Amino acid sequence: MIKEHFINAKVTPLASLDTLSPHEVAKLQDISKGGLYRLFRQCCLAVLNTGSEMDSTSQVLDKFRDFDIRIAHKHQGVQLELINAPASAFVDGEIIQGIREHLFTVLRDLLYIGDELDQCCDGLDETGRTTNTVFHILRHAAAMRPHIKPNLVVCWGGHSIKRHEYEYTKKVGYELGLRSFDICTGCGPGAMKGPMKGAAIAHAKQRKANPRYIGLTEPGIIAAESPNPIVNELVTLPDIEKRLEAFVRLGHGIIVFPGGAGTAEEILYMLGILLHPKNADVPYPLVFTGPQGSEAYFETVDRFIRTTLGDEATKRYQIIVDDPHGVAVTIKEGMEQVLAYRKQTDESFHFNWQLHIPEEFQQPFEPTHEAMAQLCLKEGQPDYILAAQLRRALSGIVAGNVKEPGVLAIEKHGPFELTGDKVIMDALDELLESFVNQHRMKINHEEYVPCYRIVN
Amino acid sequence: MIKEHFINAKVTPLASLDTLSPHEVAKLQDISKGGLYRLFRQCCLAVLNTGSEMDSTSQVLDKFRDFDIRIAHKHQGVQLELINAPASAFVDGEIIQGIREHLFTVLRDLLYIGDELDQCCDGLDETGRTTNTVFHILRHAAAMRPHIKPNLVVCWGGHSIKRHEYEYTKKVGYELGLRSFDICTGCGPGAMKGPMKGAAIAHAKQRKANPRYIGLTEPGIIAAESPNPIVNELVTLPDIEKRLEAFVRLGHGIIVFPGGAGTAEEILYMLGILLHPKNADVPYPLVFTGPQGSEAYFETVDRFIRTTLGDEATKRYQIIVDDPHGVAVTIKEGMEQVLAYRKQTDESFHFNWQLHIPEEFQQPFEPTHEAMAQLCLKEGQPDYILAAQLRRALSGIVAGNVKEPGVLAIEKHGPFELTGDKVIMDALDELLESFVNQHRMKINHEEYVPCYRIVN
Amino acid sequence: MIKEHFINAKVTPLASLDTLSPHEVAKLQDISKGGLYRLFRQCCLAVLNTGSEMDSTSQVLDKFRDFDIRIAHKHQGVQLELINAPASAFVDGEIIQGIREHLFTVLRDLLYIGDELDQCCDGLDETGRTTNTVFHILRHAAAMRPHIKPNLVVCWGGHSIKRHEYEYTKKVGYELGLRSFDICTGCGPGAMKGPMKGAAIAHAKQRKANPRYIGLTEPGIIAAESPNPIVNELVTLPDIEKRLEAFVRLGHGIIVFPGGAGTAEEILYMLGILLHPKNADVPYPLVFTGPQGSEAYFETVDRFIRTTLGDEATKRYQIIVDDPHGVAVTIKEGMEQVLAYRKQTDESFHFNWQLHIPEEFQQPFEPTHEAMAQLCLKEGQPDYILAAQLRRALSGIVAGNVKEPGVLAIEKHGPFELTGDKVIMDALDELLESFVNQHRMKINHEEYVPCYRIVN
Amino acid sequence: MIKEHFINAKVTPLASLDTLSPHEVAKLQDISKGGLYRLFRQCCLAVLNTGSEMDSTSQVLDKFRDFDIRIAHKHQGVQLELINAPASAFVDGEIIQGIREHLFTVLRDLLYIGDELDQCCDGLDETGRTTNTVFHILRHAAAMRPHIKPNLVVCWGGHSIKRHEYEYTKKVGYELGLRSFDICTGCGPGAMKGPMKGAAIAHAKQRKANPRYIGLTEPGIIAAESPNPIVNELVTLPDIEKRLEAFVRLGHGIIVFPGGAGTAEEILYMLGILLHPKNADVPYPLVFTGPQGSEAYFETVDRFIRTTLGDEATKRYQIIVDDPHGVAVTIKEGMEQVLAYRKQTDESFHFNWQLHIPEEFQQPFEPTHEAMAQLCLKEGQPDYILAAQLRRALSGIVAGNVKEPGVLAIEKHGPFELTGDKVIMDALDELLESFVNQHRMKINHEEYVPCYRIVN
Repeated sequence: MIKEHFINAKVTPLASLDTLSPHEVAKLQDISKGGLYRLFRQCCLAVLNTGSEMDSTSQVLDKFRDFDIRIAHKHQGVQLELINAPASAFVDGEIIQGIREHLFTVLRDLLYIGDELDQCCDGLDETGRTTNTVFHILRHAAAMRPHIKPNLVVCWGGHSIKRHEYEYTKKVGYELGLRSFDICTGCGPGAMKGPMKGAAIAHAKQRKANPRYIGLTEPGIIAAESPNPIVNELVTLPDIEKRLEAFVRLGHGIIVFPGGAGTAEEILYMLGILLHPKNADVPYPLVFTGPQGSEAYFETVDRFIRTTLGDEATKRYQIIVDDPHGVAVTIKEGMEQVLAYRKQTDESFHFNWQLHIPEEFQQPFEPTHEAMAQLCLKEGQPDYILAAQLRRALSGIVAGNVKEPGVLAIEKHGPFELTGDKVIMDALDELLESFVNQHRMKINHEEYVPCYRIVN
Repeated sequence: MIKEHFINAKVTPLASLDTLSPHEVAKLQDISKGGLYRLFRQCCLAVLNTGSEMDSTSQVLDKFRDFDIRIAHKHQGVQLELINAPASAFVDGEIIQGIREHLFTVLRDLLYIGDELDQCCDGLDETGRTTNTVFHILRHAAAMRPHIKPNLVVCWGGHSIKRHEYEYTKKVGYELGLRSFDICTGCGPGAMKGPMKGAAIAHAKQRKANPRYIGLTEPGIIAAESPNPIVNELVTLPDIEKRLEAFVRLGHGIIVFPGGAGTAEEILYMLGILLHPKNADVPYPLVFTGPQGSEAYFETVDRFIRTTLGDEATKRYQIIVDDPHGVAVTIKEGMEQVLAYRKQTDESFHFNWQLHIPEEFQQPFEPTHEAMAQLCLKEGQPDYILAAQLRRALSGIVAGNVKEPGVLAIEKHGPFELTGDKVIMDALDELLESFVNQHRMKINHEEYVPCYRIVN
Repeated sequence: MIKEHFINAKVTPLASLDTLSPHEVAKLQDISKGGLYRLFRQCCLAVLNTGSEMDSTSQVLDKFRDFDIRIAHKHQGVQLELINAPASAFVDGEIIQGIREHLFTVLRDLLYIGDELDQCCDGLDETGRTTNTVFHILRHAAAMRPHIKPNLVVCWGGHSIKRHEYEYTKKVGYELGLRSFDICTGCGPGAMKGPMKGAAIAHAKQRKANPRYIGLTEPGIIAAESPNPIVNELVTLPDIEKRLEAFVRLGHGIIVFPGGAGTAEEILYMLGILLHPKNADVPYPLVFTGPQGSEAYFETVDRFIRTTLGDEATKRYQIIVDDPHGVAVTIKEGMEQVLAYRKQTDESFHFNWQLHIPEEFQQPFEPTHEAMAQLCLKEGQPDYILAAQLRRALSGIVAGNVKEPGVLAIEKHGPFELTGDKVIMDALDELLESFVNQHRMKINHEEYVPCYRIVN
Repeated sequence: MIKEHFINAKVTPLASLDTLSPHEVAKLQDISKGGLYRLFRQCCLAVLNTGSEMDSTSQVLDKFRDFDIRIAHKHQGVQLELINAPASAFVDGEIIQGIREHLFTVLRDLLYIGDELDQCCDGLDETGRTTNTVFHILRHAAAMRPHIKPNLVVCWGGHSIKRHEYEYTKKVGYELGLRSFDICTGCGPGAMKGPMKGAAIAHAKQRKANPRYIGLTEPGIIAAESPNPIVNELVTLPDIEKRLEAFVRLGHGIIVFPGGAGTAEEILYMLGILLHPKNADVPYPLVFTGPQGSEAYFETVDRFIRTTLGDEATKRYQIIVDDPHGVAVTIKEGMEQVLAYRKQTDESFHFNWQLHIPEEFQQPFEPTHEAMAQLCLKEGQPDYILAAQLRRALSGIVAGNVKEPGVLAIEKHGPFELTGDKVIMDALDELLESFVNQHRMKINHEEYVPCYRIVN
């Protein structure tokens, strides 16, 4: 059978999303610099390219260079016209419903971010503005459920993991689903998809009424990590820092599976925040877990944390090997502490306002060669500050691996150069080296060429 | 039995509305000039004062001068605390659910108007901004239903009407409900409540799944026209002109029952728009109707229109006396034309973008003595312009009758003075005189003192 | 406009009711003696004849003698074909949805009663069989809601009441609806419709999610008391005794409005049961109420009860005049006792198994002239036995007034003759006389000719 | 961690199922011969024993010999008390919701079969009674959806299949789910679970609103094939013949995966019916499929069919190897023919009345040694009659393998003896031999001792 690779289709939006004004339609079609067309096209393409094994944004963009998206106003609402769209988004010529939903959530978020949001925070300082922006985007996406007790588990981990690791993430998801937890991940394949699949089966067995599979993404990463259609709430945040903030304020507990630089970045982000003195009393279950055979990963990570942030930092997480049931029970116990604390402090269930996120973690980091070179990777700083610096270093490496501008910059200027105190640089070197050896950097690991260089 | 008049209560919001940020909570409690507290308190009081027979804002405010409202952040969301609230909003100490909903829709709209809206329309001209603002407020209130064929009937008419007129509005509502039409009014008693009650019974008989009883209000009128709890979608627009625009863009047909100056204002607004050349082809069913015994009202109105706007204007409406079934059938036929036209022109079902509303009808009119005196009530203008001027004159009279600032201004400076061409002024005089004689100006008509003076 | 009186239409059934077997379809079309056609046609006609002012079964049957109903099997389920159906059931040629529902509930109940029910009660005695039959019919009709706290108020009263009495029943219904009570009546106009209309408005204000307006009828009465389409759960019981049992086992409290012989029958039924020693501790709120101007009715009834059943009997009910709020509050307090008692005795919320209904109230009573003449209306019997005898006397009078076989028997043999002890017969005479004088016997009271004769 | 194996728990029923009468409760607790206790306990145990790897009824019954189930009447409905129940049905001490549902559907069906059903079919012949009984049970279980176009795919196949076969059934289920087909199987593990799991993931992606995973079982098989909790509609038919009839009348297409004797029985049942001349024109898609490596199975089956029933018989099915997409597309095309035929012949979508099922396939077959010995396995009979005889032979072998009375009979009297024409007996021998060699007879295939003997 010859398979078609490109499909043309007309897609009508979901009821709640197709009341666009002509002005909004114009903005989505505006190909000028200030217009949304380019961003909208790219995100839609990512959404349509689900299930693809490509994690290189430029490859995706190149393969579907003839893809186009147009918006028409019809008497029953707007209509999207897809031209040369990836065939994988369709079944017998009809778009998969979950993907249809994703298309319109992207549209919803891009319009909201671009448009309505600017003035919501007058009178607030920078930190307040960032947090409130995250809050407003999530609320606009209806991602908060005020009367539901803490039950949202964030799962982090690599998009390029081994088969037995993937099966393990499904088993953990299954155990979480049996306990009616909802799942939130960063979209994409691997550790971001497995827990949702496992949970979906368990939720079916538990007849969970409105199971949530939340995907948080951002324009820079979405092309490399297409959301799986199981995701039934997709939210596109404007940048990686707001996406990370959305994870930790929306979620009630975090599980980290093996992964690469991106996962390590997430770990440092979360640990850095939890190490801030203001958060000392805030309970937040954080579990690192993997199957038998993947112990090496967490040993390396654990060693890296001890060396750079100190033993104290290890008190905020728990490592559990090859025990999905144990992971779920640990999370469940942690959730009960979260519940008790929220009640006691009159904090809302749906948004963790009280977690203090230092400015260093909120400011968008543009990983240019210059910025990477200037990172302060030295001892003697407060641990949470050092964590923020390390987080940025890893963020840059992710960009150099899979994000379009990062990859272009590397092609042009060569690898990023990182400098700092020897103890830290050695630890970082070991960590990254182990990711390369464990094939965690890219899906096509054979071709992996490091995008960074440790300068001692 | 001694009845309590004031009640203290704590009210938790509806799920979808209680995810406020601390920043928003602060704004609602801000008693400074820029803060929302005063407006929020006044609107909430109006909502709670449902069923009251008072249409004097100042009387309402005075009677409940000890009323207060506070907002607290709880772990499951925000909580309103009501102090010395009108007892009529409660049954056995518990707030009526419809009123609870209204409280939180007020909160929703005030925050949205105050906050998020400003930047939604960059790059648009004044007219575009106004229309888009109305659109955004309605969309934010989830008041648009894109896939539903035209079925929303706007009912206008007096809040102070006679018993048999009220019964007639119920009968018309019943016939509309049997045909599954949804109802939209301006809230308040009389002709704004009767059609909803009648429709509610008919909707029950027709098992209509999600019947809509939409109330459109604005802060200046809400205290005088408390929304009836049957209203299951309450939207507060920022001013009277945007409220009128919301009526005509959201609705698909209009029925006008007998009323006073406010009703005449609405008639002139609608007629003025329909007389604009750009709207010549836009179908819009418009029916004036009342029971036997109320013919005089529409005769006067009809004569007034002929005299001022000309016989041509009368082609855009139909007068039907004492025939609820006929009214419903006429509206139904009109709707079919609306449906056909929208399909043919690819206009959305849920918002009438194509109706041209001239700037003169959009600009907020502040009825000061000076502004009233300067109205150009002369012949020789385009009919729609004259209609706009007359609309403003009537708007000022409504303000002088029931709105707080208007009443205060009249108390201070005496009646508004209106001047213009004799033919027009005589017609206006006769119209207003007839309203006074028919006791349509105020609920307590015995005390009615005209707030205007025709200066020939 | 010339109104059509008869309409032909095809009606597809509700999803859950159109999975009939060919065998069942054949039975509904079987015009032989054992077949269901005649009964089905008559009940459907009654359902379609809603809103009619005729309470004479034979007049209804005669007016619509050309009415026919046929059933066809289609690929998507069965289809009813209506020929010469009453036009009042249609709006613009389409059947009112509530009436459509009623048609198929009639079909559901007739098939179930005729067919599946016989063997459900093997091994039970007569009383057990009757009660279980009632239970099975109600369960099959999905009329029981196990997890809902006692909240079903049965409203009894006349179908032919005065305007101000009707308005009063609406007000009581409104107060009940504000407290979220569900309503159950015997279908038909007057006191059976008013409380539902009032409650419907209040339920809308309280946003009650699934308000219940239950109508319990039986084939002998349905033609005279067509169900109002507001009824959203219609159940047809096989005979009057099972219908009465369904009322008292399903309901949690009873309100009696003014009425005629049928209402008095219901009062005696309920009182007779409550007077049985086994029910001494079972709480069951029972309120007689009417507006100012209707005191006479309950005074007569009260006097009749005192004379025949003794003062003790009056402790089981409360008379409240002209106080809708007071009625609702009394019922609410009574419900709380019902709730407490059910919990304490582990009795289900949805069916009052523990209420003992003596055999005398369960046996179907065929009101022939002979049976009426043999009633034992004498002193010296246990009060509940006397109540049962009086109940039968009144039941016969209702049959002679409005039921087809009864009316025919009276035409043929003259009025029923009733004999008994003078005290009782005088009381009965006074009671019935007052009904005649108050025009409560028939809608067309001018023509009323008594169908009974007291023989002292 | 020490795992508990037995759990005690109290389980409240689903709302719609807990309105039992005291009489029904008594029957479920009646341990006498006519009572339902023994059957109810056994079926509940099977439901609770989900996920177990035991397919021996007697092993299951022995392991949980201390299991007990009691019913109590509570004020909010009935309550089940489980004593020494399998721990696998619980998560952290709470019963899995799907299993809770299954418990009460078993209760529903046992009461209905035992009780209400007998009289539903008076006046029908034997065949009519059987079909109507199946229809009534399915309708009572709400298993028919009249307005939904044919979309129910029955999946048959072994409970004991190889890993790659199981993965293949998931893939086929996934392709079916992408096309929004619902799934119906016989419950239990293996080919009965895989398609549901695959479909569940695809249904999630397609946002299918009410996906159906129907399990049809019968008391004799349920203990050996515990329903998986994904099954969201479980129906227990009274015997194996009615269960088979339910499959073919409810389903719109059938997919057969590799399996053992039970699967072969199902194939012969279906083929026998399709070969009846009355069914010559009735479209019914029937696909045999398995992954690469399982071709041998269908080759054997195909050869067996050709030898015994002739080449003509092979026209009614299609064999597809290793192509999940092709299977789904074939079924989809077949469904369109079914749809067209149903419309054309006015046959209902929800129950295939027109399929003629000869008496030989309806009569319950009791596989005693005598009955097995008397089977007429000879040439020269009409093909559908021979198919019926062969079906019974295989049914007996299934009973001897896994059903309690069958296993006991074999233990006592030795293997069943089968005789017939050599051609047929050789073909049967080869077929069964291949099942043994392919380990398809039992989960614990090492221990398999044939329960039959071919006597030539």
